[in-house]
Amino acid sequence: MSPATKLLAGVELGGTKCVCILGTGPDDVRAVERLPTGEREETLRQIEAVLDRWRAQHGPVRALGIASFGPVDLRADSPTYGFITSTSKAGWRNTDVALRLGRRMGGPVGFDTDVNGAALAEGRWGAAVGLDDFAYVTVGTGIGAGLIVRGKSIFGMNHTELGHIRVVRKAGDKFPGVCPYHGDCIEGLASGPAIEARAGMPASQLPPDHPAWDFVAHGLAQLVHSMVLTTAPSRIFLGGGVMSAQTHLFERIQQELKRSLNRYVEAPELEQGIGHYIVAPGLGSMAGPLGALALAADAEVASAIKPLVTAASR
Amino acid sequence: MSPATKLLAGVELGGTKCVCILGTGPDDVRAVERLPTGEREETLRQIEAVLDRWRAQHGPVRALGIASFGPVDLRADSPTYGFITSTSKAGWRNTDVALRLGRRMGGPVGFDTDVNGAALAEGRWGAAVGLDDFAYVTVGTGIGAGLIVRGKSIFGMNHTELGHIRVVRKAGDKFPGVCPYHGDCIEGLASGPAIEARAGMPASQLPPDHPAWDFVAHGLAQLVHSMVLTTAPSRIFLGGGVMSAQTHLFERIQQELKRSLNRYVEAPELEQGIGHYIVAPGLGSMAGPLGALALAADAEVASAIKPLVTAASR
Repeated sequence: MSPATKLLAGVELGGTKCVCILGTGPDDVRAVERLPTGEREETLRQIEAVLDRWRAQHGPVRALGIASFGPVDLRADSPTYGFITSTSKAGWRNTDVALRLGRRMGGPVGFDTDVNGAALAEGRWGAAVGLDDFAYVTVGTGIGAGLIVRGKSIFGMNHTELGHIRVVRKAGDKFPGVCPYHGDCIEGLASGPAIEARAGMPASQLPPDHPAWDFVAHGLAQLVHSMVLTTAPSRIFLGGGVMSAQTHLFERIQQELKRSLNRYVEAPELEQGIGHYIVAPGLGSMAGPLGALALAADAEVASAIKPLVTAASR
Repeated sequence: MSPATKLLAGVELGGTKCVCILGTGPDDVRAVERLPTGEREETLRQIEAVLDRWRAQHGPVRALGIASFGPVDLRADSPTYGFITSTSKAGWRNTDVALRLGRRMGGPVGFDTDVNGAALAEGRWGAAVGLDDFAYVTVGTGIGAGLIVRGKSIFGMNHTELGHIRVVRKAGDKFPGVCPYHGDCIEGLASGPAIEARAGMPASQLPPDHPAWDFVAHGLAQLVHSMVLTTAPSRIFLGGGVMSAQTHLFERIQQELKRSLNRYVEAPELEQGIGHYIVAPGLGSMAGPLGALALAADAEVASAIKPLVTAASR
């Protein structure tokens, strides 16, 4: 098999299901396999079996990408690099994922959070093509964000965990929140489970005129307010189950954001352009698996550039 | 004059004073000139006179850096790139700074906010040497932050304006805040003028056991909480007049932060290392002018790299 036809492989590790994907992008997906996220050793063996089978059928892949639920360890110099670390998911605490699957496949391995992967996929193939600085937020079972700065996901001493910032409450909102760590952080206030706890029925079934949405939209607008004043993304994509089921939220969040920023930042994105600033992502339910593929593609580029840079600096 | 002896020039444009600086770094400052920030045309002409004189005495500079109070326009493709834009400072709205002073000097020009400049100076010469991801926060007349990601200041659709995020209030804190845009954003709650409005005396004179500090420390810890979960800096430097006069704030903020994060992020920086994580900057009152010099140094590197990259990509 010639190198030109070699493929990328991705694994999206989710809290409830894992998706393995083989291809080169959204228009060239050769295979997708979904399996439930169960007991850790069994799950990882099933993933390895899929990857082994693909290698037997299609030959070695160019690179592997892993987009994982977190928190994960992304410190390159850490003995637990590539691990899922302090997760509350039973049995998955301190699990080597990246090195294990990487050894299995050989070649470059990309590893990042699921939301960072989804953001990078939007930048490579989706609604963020051409943007170097943007953010992808998922509002679903949890709230998470991928912040892309100069085309890359942010990593300092840890990855972004924007879903756990605390936000100002709308007057009259007395809901205590559902986050086991923080109570009323934004995930505790506006994630799917939080909305269900507020309203007594699943977020997807809640009518748009239910009063809970005022509190949820206010909270999400506060999250976006902080994002605008921090990394100042050129566009903010709001995805996940809650946003895709309740599209009325977009305009509510836009209006709450304008009120909250109160014209402090002078930018067309925040005035006449607000409807194009806070928008739905482009890849829909494929953002997660394609995120893993995007991480593979980035890992391949990084491994190809490294020797060039070393040579140039001689 | 040989190129090896050519110098860098910097201008820190502050709300009350401007500082012009000539040299190559903190150990090689050849000249510093301070002048009050008055009427705009007069002030800019005085700065130009200083730069002209330096050029006559020392020859052309390698590059000029300008670190300015803001908001400023940093969009490279904007017709008002390099302008001070929507400032509340009388007479300075919509003022071309970077292009005007750059034309005067010739050569590469670096332009950024004063806090981004100070952060870059800390990274180049101060307490952040060796760190690629960190943050510099000033708590003084206002609250502002420079967020450094992969060695560079962040710029998306705008520069960071972290001082205007809204934070959760400590129970019992009824102070309405002093920000003309947002009332009780963090600048409205914990800047020098806010503290003076709370306590009826200047922040620098307030005794450490004054009850206002509980509210101020709580607010600043909330700011840091958001920073930890957003760009996750490897270290956070807290400078400015309030922090340098009231050093008891460091430990209060550290303890409030630990309480607020509640061990959600597992990182040594946030446990036994907290005393080394939230610290004072290293350059003291020279951070501002050295920030302008750091912007000059970065502009020189960028202008030298650009032709190399173009050549390498052919």
